[in-house]
Amino acid sequence: MSSLYPSLEDLKVDQAIQAQVRASPKMPALPVQATAISPPPVLYPNLAELENYMGLSLSSQEVQESLLQIPEGDSTAVSGPGPGQMVAPVTGYSLGVRRAEIKPGVREIHLCKDERGKTGLRLRKVDQLLQIDGRDCAGWSSHKAHQVVKKASGDKIVVVVRDRPFQRTVTMHKDSMGHVGFVIKKGKIVSLVKGSSAARNGLLTNHYVCEVDGQNVIGLKDKKIMEILATAGNVVTLTIIPSVIYEHMVKKLPPVLLHHTMDHSIPDA
Amino acid sequence: MSSLYPSLEDLKVDQAIQAQVRASPKMPALPVQATAISPPPVLYPNLAELENYMGLSLSSQEVQESLLQIPEGDSTAVSGPGPGQMVAPVTGYSLGVRRAEIKPGVREIHLCKDERGKTGLRLRKVDQLLQIDGRDCAGWSSHKAHQVVKKASGDKIVVVVRDRPFQRTVTMHKDSMGHVGFVIKKGKIVSLVKGSSAARNGLLTNHYVCEVDGQNVIGLKDKKIMEILATAGNVVTLTIIPSVIYEHMVKKLPPVLLHHTMDHSIPDA
Repeated sequence: MSSLYPSLEDLKVDQAIQAQVRASPKMPALPVQATAISPPPVLYPNLAELENYMGLSLSSQEVQESLLQIPEGDSTAVSGPGPGQMVAPVTGYSLGVRRAEIKPGVREIHLCKDERGKTGLRLRKVDQLLQIDGRDCAGWSSHKAHQVVKKASGDKIVVVVRDRPFQRTVTMHKDSMGHVGFVIKKGKIVSLVKGSSAARNGLLTNHYVCEVDGQNVIGLKDKKIMEILATAGNVVTLTIIPSVIYEHMVKKLPPVLLHHTMDHSIPDA
Repeated sequence: MSSLYPSLEDLKVDQAIQAQVRASPKMPALPVQATAISPPPVLYPNLAELENYMGLSLSSQEVQESLLQIPEGDSTAVSGPGPGQMVAPVTGYSLGVRRAEIKPGVREIHLCKDERGKTGLRLRKVDQLLQIDGRDCAGWSSHKAHQVVKKASGDKIVVVVRDRPFQRTVTMHKDSMGHVGFVIKKGKIVSLVKGSSAARNGLLTNHYVCEVDGQNVIGLKDKKIMEILATAGNVVTLTIIPSVIYEHMVKKLPPVLLHHTMDHSIPDA
């Protein structure tokens, strides 16, 4: 099984690094050296080219940090990581990638009602809610689910959800102009810039942007989303959802809730 | 951030274990004891109930193995795992869960043509192919992609794909009758059994079954798929894809390819 990478740029940079490691004379590693990660003494000459690889604006520092991941003389670095392990020489330190990570799984969440008796939840049949206070929701209408939440205790409602089942992430890299290369209209990706990191990494039109580096942007104006993108680092991770699912979920949501009362805070790492 | 679990059953069993650990008198741990995982001296009385929890047919051995994961007197077991960490007290040892794991990411694959000049690939626009031999595929028609593959060298074609972008996994547990609780018709999930593990874990109708414990079952007869399910262990992981995507991908595929020449081997772990 081949390795997985957060982005196409990571794949290419990792290959260049591995080629470099293979080309370098290997020192027999002492047990102590094999585990200690010491900085390489010099910047490998042909890796300097990576600073402008594929339009990436990688700083020398970023390339050096990528190199720090390879313990010198450690043969495991040459043979590559184990199957299923994510290799991220460029995005490795990106907080956004970690914040945006989606794992398939089931999660329990505890809710309580506010002084008006509201939880802040609007449920739609597709949302993949599995249980409310221990009762299985399979086959329930959204009306039924709302009734159960309404009747539940205000202090603690235990809900079990499948975690973000229809969302995906795409990690991209800004070019020297600071662009990743896509256009949105009312939160929906409507076009991709040819040759951009967005196009190369398989960002898709007909999808809505849910998060930028893990920060919820649903309901924000396009201008505000572009501002968040502009202030993000060189590595940007978008969380996207197909239009058909998004539109189903928000179609009965009052615009005031969508645009003004949603939580857009930056998540903890 | 709360913990993630492969299945609802894992969540419930973990909570029961954690409650048990909290209820047990804690011993002050010596440094050596904190890292050594020693078997608990006896089966905790109220965990015996887990053997029949939610219709699960957990053996005493499985419950004991779950308990082995908790070092006695280790306070980190009480506070729970870190954010984003998957907790799997029941499915923890399942090979199927590991084989079926889907991570968002980009993967490079090397192909070569057979004696008839074929790679075994049929491409559709939605497949999320990013590059063929270094050329970006964004915006290409499937015809164009096929032309490029056709003209490529027979010895090595390098393709970069986004890994299984539209697939998801759902992990379920067999009841004492050996059922997880769903019905398929020509590979498509058409109904769920009320109260079954499939229903509880949010398996969805209008999806096709792609894999059982990581083994490709696309194109197999329903009877064969049910046989594979029957021989699987108590923990079963299905990989599913929405009907709309599946039908788009196979609609121009000759039935002989779908049903007779597809690779259905069991993957390496």
